[in-house]
Amino acid sequence: MANDAFAALAHPVRRGIVERLAQESTTVGAATEQFGLAKPTVSRHLKVLEDAGVVRRRIVGRLHYLELIGESLDAPYAWLSNQRYAWERLFDAVEDHLREHGSADG
Amino acid sequence: MANDAFAALAHPVRRGIVERLAQESTTVGAATEQFGLAKPTVSRHLKVLEDAGVVRRRIVGRLHYLELIGESLDAPYAWLSNQRYAWERLFDAVEDHLREHGSADG
Repeated sequence: MANDAFAALAHPVRRGIVERLAQESTTVGAATEQFGLAKPTVSRHLKVLEDAGVVRRRIVGRLHYLELIGESLDAPYAWLSNQRYAWERLFDAVEDHLREHGSADG
Repeated sequence: MANDAFAALAHPVRRGIVERLAQESTTVGAATEQFGLAKPTVSRHLKVLEDAGVVRRRIVGRLHYLELIGESLDAPYAWLSNQRYAWERLFDAVEDHLREHGSADG
């Protein structure tokens, strides 16, 4: 859910992995080598992404492939979209109010 | 930046405060009473939101007002939008490939 997805995306390394996997599904090595991190650190970040349902791992022989579960981005995207929409309506209402009643110093 | 905003939105209480403030700017008390949290906990969550530039506090006499900085949602929204777009193109490319070359069992 949005809950886990936001927390999963809260770290720049995890967002970097998502950016990489949005371009192509690839191996753990290829998806994470750009960060130059120790393997336990990579594993910890991947576990967060997998547990949140943002990334899926497929094991083929000795290779671990990662793919983005694109649908996992829907809930946080919709949440942000809703808050922006509500805030814009609020902003418009305040502007209308000021236009009708004048600003504090007007 | 997107960085801080995602981390600020990673906790359900902080998202709840944002949801409330997207509806109206209000006092700290009114924005947070629904969570039934101890004051130090509320303060800690508000500090994260303020430090990330998601929420602004205005002090009028003895009252602390909170307002959402709506623009702070733009960066995470754009980031999610970009990843979803990239992933959908990738998904389409895989579908096209399977249609042209057949699936593994086809």
